[in-house]
Amino acid sequence: MWQTERHADGPRLSGQKEMAGVMEQYTIGLDYGTLSARAALVDTATGREVASAVFPYPHAVIRGVLPASGQALPADFALQDPQDYEDALTALLSAVWRKAGVRPEQIAGIGVDFTTCTVLALDDALRPMCRRKAYRAEPHSYAKLWNHHGAAPEAERLDEVAAARGETFLARYGGKSSCEWLFPKLFETMDRAPELWRDAFCFLEAGDWIVYLLTGTVRMSAVLAGYKAYWDPEEGYPSDSFFRAAAPGLERVVSDKLPFSSTISLPGTPAGGLSAAMAQATGLCAGTCVSVATGDAHAGVPASGVRKSGDMLLVAGTSLCQMLVSSRKHAVSGICGRVRDGLLPGFYGYEAGQPAAGDMLDWFISGLGSARGEQKAARFADMNEKAAALRPGQSGLLALDWWNGNRSVLNNAALSGMIVGLTLTTRPEEIYRALLEAAAFGTRRICEQLTGSGLTIGDVYACGGLSRKNPALMQVFSDVLQRPIRVSANEQAACAGAAIFAAAAAGVYADVQDASARMAGGILRVYTPRTEHRAVYDALYADYCALYDGFGTSELMARLRAWRDPAAENE
Amino acid sequence: MWQTERHADGPRLSGQKEMAGVMEQYTIGLDYGTLSARAALVDTATGREVASAVFPYPHAVIRGVLPASGQALPADFALQDPQDYEDALTALLSAVWRKAGVRPEQIAGIGVDFTTCTVLALDDALRPMCRRKAYRAEPHSYAKLWNHHGAAPEAERLDEVAAARGETFLARYGGKSSCEWLFPKLFETMDRAPELWRDAFCFLEAGDWIVYLLTGTVRMSAVLAGYKAYWDPEEGYPSDSFFRAAAPGLERVVSDKLPFSSTISLPGTPAGGLSAAMAQATGLCAGTCVSVATGDAHAGVPASGVRKSGDMLLVAGTSLCQMLVSSRKHAVSGICGRVRDGLLPGFYGYEAGQPAAGDMLDWFISGLGSARGEQKAARFADMNEKAAALRPGQSGLLALDWWNGNRSVLNNAALSGMIVGLTLTTRPEEIYRALLEAAAFGTRRICEQLTGSGLTIGDVYACGGLSRKNPALMQVFSDVLQRPIRVSANEQAACAGAAIFAAAAAGVYADVQDASARMAGGILRVYTPRTEHRAVYDALYADYCALYDGFGTSELMARLRAWRDPAAENE
Repeated sequence: MWQTERHADGPRLSGQKEMAGVMEQYTIGLDYGTLSARAALVDTATGREVASAVFPYPHAVIRGVLPASGQALPADFALQDPQDYEDALTALLSAVWRKAGVRPEQIAGIGVDFTTCTVLALDDALRPMCRRKAYRAEPHSYAKLWNHHGAAPEAERLDEVAAARGETFLARYGGKSSCEWLFPKLFETMDRAPELWRDAFCFLEAGDWIVYLLTGTVRMSAVLAGYKAYWDPEEGYPSDSFFRAAAPGLERVVSDKLPFSSTISLPGTPAGGLSAAMAQATGLCAGTCVSVATGDAHAGVPASGVRKSGDMLLVAGTSLCQMLVSSRKHAVSGICGRVRDGLLPGFYGYEAGQPAAGDMLDWFISGLGSARGEQKAARFADMNEKAAALRPGQSGLLALDWWNGNRSVLNNAALSGMIVGLTLTTRPEEIYRALLEAAAFGTRRICEQLTGSGLTIGDVYACGGLSRKNPALMQVFSDVLQRPIRVSANEQAACAGAAIFAAAAAGVYADVQDASARMAGGILRVYTPRTEHRAVYDALYADYCALYDGFGTSELMARLRAWRDPAAENE
Repeated sequence: MWQTERHADGPRLSGQKEMAGVMEQYTIGLDYGTLSARAALVDTATGREVASAVFPYPHAVIRGVLPASGQALPADFALQDPQDYEDALTALLSAVWRKAGVRPEQIAGIGVDFTTCTVLALDDALRPMCRRKAYRAEPHSYAKLWNHHGAAPEAERLDEVAAARGETFLARYGGKSSCEWLFPKLFETMDRAPELWRDAFCFLEAGDWIVYLLTGTVRMSAVLAGYKAYWDPEEGYPSDSFFRAAAPGLERVVSDKLPFSSTISLPGTPAGGLSAAMAQATGLCAGTCVSVATGDAHAGVPASGVRKSGDMLLVAGTSLCQMLVSSRKHAVSGICGRVRDGLLPGFYGYEAGQPAAGDMLDWFISGLGSARGEQKAARFADMNEKAAALRPGQSGLLALDWWNGNRSVLNNAALSGMIVGLTLTTRPEEIYRALLEAAAFGTRRICEQLTGSGLTIGDVYACGGLSRKNPALMQVFSDVLQRPIRVSANEQAACAGAAIFAAAAAGVYADVQDASARMAGGILRVYTPRTEHRAVYDALYADYCALYDGFGTSELMARLRAWRDPAAENE
């Protein structure tokens, strides 16, 4: 069910420190992803990962059918069983320090990151409502995963009312909500499962719930609340009157269903000490410092070298996130969110994203190309090599990278992918190359949205699976953006980031920046832009933008989507 | 090198006719395609094919490099070696009557169809100029195949001058020339190979040259001249002053380089009798009637059931042709051509086309899917079955079928294919289905161009490989056009049509219509439109037209093409 890994080079004691009697200190990063959770034990002096363990969720993502009842789920539902989170927690924490060969008292702290917004309905003992017999067959009682899209009408309603009332909070979110966020998901539960809504004591982001499981007390994350729940350190949540205007019954959502909102704190500050029960279950020391949680994409920021105003991080995996830290405060239309201290304390943290990147390439190789297993790996290697050998423009193709809709800057899930320029001589690697370029053009469009709003982008860093596995993609990004791209040496940046937040919270370092400076690790590789490709890519990007605006403002893609899945017409 | 086939059910003598002492009569159809020539020996009483033979051209299509010199050819050149045509002629005629087991005196006539415009430069003995030592290394001395695209600038120049002078002939061709036609190809030779131009005695369509090889006399085809060389039975060729205005030196092109234009005659009329030399070479009887040639797509018309005003034939193979016979004379913008008596004597014959259909599907299976041989056949079967099972709109995709440019009604070779609506769950059969639908939408657009210009479309017939091999495609066509589609029982309609023209020329029947009524064979299958799909397809077709107009008028696709192949920028 779960695997652990003892790294070959193990922990080494520093002779100097040992002589001075200073104990080596470690922190543990816990990274809750979409399909598995991962723990890493990290040396706080260097950031080196000493041991790690992975726990795949037995129930993975619940789609199509609810196992507890066999009932069919709407196509846009994506649920999880929180038992998986809890099982992962004890299994990973029990294993990782033993595999590392360190002593429990050497563990200074534990940090947590989680997919977000992944939200749980809890009872008054803070147990998931889905554990109650009465709600086992109620889909809304399970964890609504970040990419659960059932709340699209509710998101639209909230935006309409916010616009009509001239609410200012939406400006921090680029002017539009996502159906993936907290309040649409809660509103959806109130709409569709009113008894559950009434009976639930409260709702928590799953990341905050893990921190509660560790410490026995709730301390909510300012990053999760900031990016996913309209919350701001100065303005707080939207007013009751806004929620009342959106829907009768929703007006007391903050006071009634988010009773711990007074505890909102920054990641990198302590949430509490490890409870005696959890200490017993894992073998770790009671009282070990636990940091406030953060989001999985956000955790990578301090682990990738980002530290000064203007630094941007590309988190390149199945999807793409752009994280910019800046000392400036601007409203940027079409981005996902701006949160003060949300990425690094002392800066405004801007988040934007493209909801398909690795997924889109995987679709091309597996979905369209029917490649599986080893054949798939070989096919990826072949495509990357052939695509890298093409000169820019040689494919004669241009694509819109909207295979999973557009998040920034159009924020429209009904948009879809497009390829133009196909001929009888178009080869597979040319299409693959066009997909790489489309992803890069999409990021350039986001960068121009940020700079066009008055922000400055300085150094660009990258982390995530694609940043290491796909050099062809990274070179295309560098050429299209005409900027160097520094790939983090941290293979698991989110997990490493959680360990950095733990070190700051535990006081191993004065703050997150100090911890990051010592623990972020180096740069694996720098991709430098080839200036000879600038003119081609400037021209192709201009055409990309024309298609972007054309299809982005037309209703064509929404109509096609409605033909595909008539049930989606209401979204 | 070539294969013959003796049909299992051989020739059967009709007891009644035999008793009456009437000899069974046969004709031979010779069909010169792009990669091979084919002969069929046909029973004139029934149209039944008794035996056939195929001769693949040893030199196939000459692209990339000229074998005689090793020199590189421009990417848009497509040449053939006329020795292949001549070798095919004697081989096929020698074989087919022997395989059929008939006596030479039972062969009433021979008919010829050829790809068009495929043009040869000839010396004063009517031998191809490429046989002369001095011109073996000169690409323009070879047969310029129908899809040779080297004359694009010349086609544009001719159109400019025609427009500036208010020439009326272009209205018969939808307002625009194709670079594939005769005068652009001759103009190109004058431009790029002036010595060859000076030394060449004349130029002939390859179909007319085959008729010359058979009979020893030249009789040019009104169909080839009408559809490909601006010729009209009432107006003749454009004037010398037009050609002078287009280019100095071109003014005497008709009188100097087309010296046989006074012989222009209709297919189905006799060109002459088989020469003694050809009779000796093939074993056939000297004096056997040879019909005037026709085009390969045009030949299918009388073999597919088309006989009254309003009948339309879809020739569905690697590309699509739409052939409409009508008693009405209208100017239709964007079609390939209108020729009086060009498809059936007594009617105006309208031709339009889409330059990729089977080719586009083959690209999807072989080019993108990398399927070869048996795997390819299995993949086609699988795709057809799965695509047929989808309901209209279910793919959520819409494509523009311009993988090889757009012939009608935009006449723009720089256009390219496009797909929109792609998502992470898009399956291969959905893309395949979208390609079928795009081909059908393209035909519907052509039909609306014809009917919008005052013509009526009545019964729709289909022939060609796709009409038999791809039932999924035919059903989609019927649903999209909302018309029944009658698939000809003639597997090789062009060859059968050539045999019908031979029977008319030889006087076995009074005229082509009579011959067609007896020899066309029946209908293999009728596809009927499913009315429940009308609304979906009307809506999707409206979006197809919006994309058609948008991409058709934008320069985007031409720009992408220019990036792909910088050498093509001049076109």
